[in-house]
Amino acid sequence: MPRDFSRITPFDTTLQTRARAYLDTLTKPPGSLGRLEDLAVSLCHITDTLTPHVDPPGIVVFAADHGVAEEGVSAFPQAVTAQMVANFAQGGAAINVFARQIEARIEVVDVGVASDVRAEGVVDAKVRRGTRNFARENAMSAAELDQALQVGVDAVERAARAGCRCLILGEMGIANTTASSAVLAALLNRPVGPLVGAGTGLVEARLAHKIDVIEKALVARAPGSEPLEVLAAVGGLELAAMAGAMLASAERRLPVVVDGFIATVAALAAVRLCPPVREVLIFSHRSAEPGHAVALEALAATPLLELDMRLGEGSGAALAFPLLKAACAMISEMATFENAGVTR
Amino acid sequence: MPRDFSRITPFDTTLQTRARAYLDTLTKPPGSLGRLEDLAVSLCHITDTLTPHVDPPGIVVFAADHGVAEEGVSAFPQAVTAQMVANFAQGGAAINVFARQIEARIEVVDVGVASDVRAEGVVDAKVRRGTRNFARENAMSAAELDQALQVGVDAVERAARAGCRCLILGEMGIANTTASSAVLAALLNRPVGPLVGAGTGLVEARLAHKIDVIEKALVARAPGSEPLEVLAAVGGLELAAMAGAMLASAERRLPVVVDGFIATVAALAAVRLCPPVREVLIFSHRSAEPGHAVALEALAATPLLELDMRLGEGSGAALAFPLLKAACAMISEMATFENAGVTR
Repeated sequence: MPRDFSRITPFDTTLQTRARAYLDTLTKPPGSLGRLEDLAVSLCHITDTLTPHVDPPGIVVFAADHGVAEEGVSAFPQAVTAQMVANFAQGGAAINVFARQIEARIEVVDVGVASDVRAEGVVDAKVRRGTRNFARENAMSAAELDQALQVGVDAVERAARAGCRCLILGEMGIANTTASSAVLAALLNRPVGPLVGAGTGLVEARLAHKIDVIEKALVARAPGSEPLEVLAAVGGLELAAMAGAMLASAERRLPVVVDGFIATVAALAAVRLCPPVREVLIFSHRSAEPGHAVALEALAATPLLELDMRLGEGSGAALAFPLLKAACAMISEMATFENAGVTR
Repeated sequence: MPRDFSRITPFDTTLQTRARAYLDTLTKPPGSLGRLEDLAVSLCHITDTLTPHVDPPGIVVFAADHGVAEEGVSAFPQAVTAQMVANFAQGGAAINVFARQIEARIEVVDVGVASDVRAEGVVDAKVRRGTRNFARENAMSAAELDQALQVGVDAVERAARAGCRCLILGEMGIANTTASSAVLAALLNRPVGPLVGAGTGLVEARLAHKIDVIEKALVARAPGSEPLEVLAAVGGLELAAMAGAMLASAERRLPVVVDGFIATVAALAAVRLCPPVREVLIFSHRSAEPGHAVALEALAATPLLELDMRLGEGSGAALAFPLLKAACAMISEMATFENAGVTR
């Protein structure tokens, strides 16, 4: 992973202005398609054209385990990560169903599952068998972090080579809301409590324990707020891979549909590393996980959907994708007042 | 239009209970797909099966004019209704673009455009050349209302015969937010002011005039709050057709995706006429028009999207449709914990 992000520069705003003006010539009262018009403008801006395309989309699901799972912070045992990877490979998970709906290329990447993954079609990019338990030591070394970031870069390269014009990044990893809350608290230098939720379904009584584990780890690891230090200390391999994928997407000006809490924390890390990355990010949904609202606010992001979802896997991003497609079709296909002979 | 709605009876709740239980066997933390799970349960309930289908959808756009337009309540001249009908026929409007995205059958029905419509493929079901100006007299007679309701019933019949498994009802009619605000105020017996908005883009100064026109008309017409009386006095032909279509859909247990303000007011009239109609209605989006929130509340409805749209035509409903499709696919295609060998 190159640590030089100087090739990723802020985009000029010409296309935004032109897209906005063009939308007002289409046969609808100005602004009457609301946020769909903003979305069309963003897609023009990102892809540098007045006729943007997001089809076909590429979904990448990064799977990894977390040493901190041994502290009892999740409602599910660690074995579920590998079991769900097998489920992805067989096409039975929610993200598979939604991928078929939007005719997406889907790729599952093992960036650090704790056990051997013997599922057909899964990309083996295992950096290590799960992170170290950050309650006791740093989650990963600087070299491992670098490798995980590169796994994300490589996935974007494969998707782009396969013709994908938009990326949906998902994750699977038991205990990864714990890592995400820790990363978020460190990046924002904020108290841990309000950033921690039930994850996949922790009972109330275990929430206090989850908060306690994160608070103590942040004191012990003392990562500061520099994104690479934070990711190495208390992050996750799938979080790092997602951040790497976002950096690579920004360089290629590929729109990225950001999923829920974990993806948004990865996005915050990527944007802190390289602020122009923010420009390619489209936020899909507001999850039920309490830290998500805080992460979104830090990125000045208002997501498209609010459906109380908290699954991950990229599921919320895949559900929002048809809105991107509709925004592209709207600006490309609608008649103008002039062409249609409609009085303005 | 038969005035006997006794064939439309409340659905039993067995399928709701069964669907809810089945969703908890699928490979995801219970409830983690949030409102998409509720949507799946609703679709099971409406269609009386655990494997609901909403494809292909049928879009019907009812177009009509409003005599009250001559009071200067709209930002656009009345001629725009017919011009937009021609635009629909040529495939250049927003609803055409979104119809193609979701591969919908689309039908445009002239239920009362003021001028001759000579656009190919438009269904001629003109009840009269626009309603009468309800600032001076009742918008339509009881017989005309009956005829307009029947136009909606007939459209559902055609859609069902063509194999549509879900209906998206849209409208086009200059000044129809004025009629809708009047109908809403009468149905709910509420003050007019908070129920009136800018419609397609009325400037601030004309808003007070629009409110004044409606207030005086409601005093002069004094329709009470019985839905048929209200529709005849201050309604619109496209509003009546939409209400008729909803009644017919309920009888056939076809899910109806309700669009924005005007469609929701039509839904309120239909539900007041026959309460079980509520069960087949799925509310797609919350529009920027202020009366919409009030109408939604009266129907105890929380729409799926909130994108500040205010176009009509069925555009918001068409944009929400992929969520219905995803909900169906989710319950039909996801693996169970048992089948996938995932620890619960």
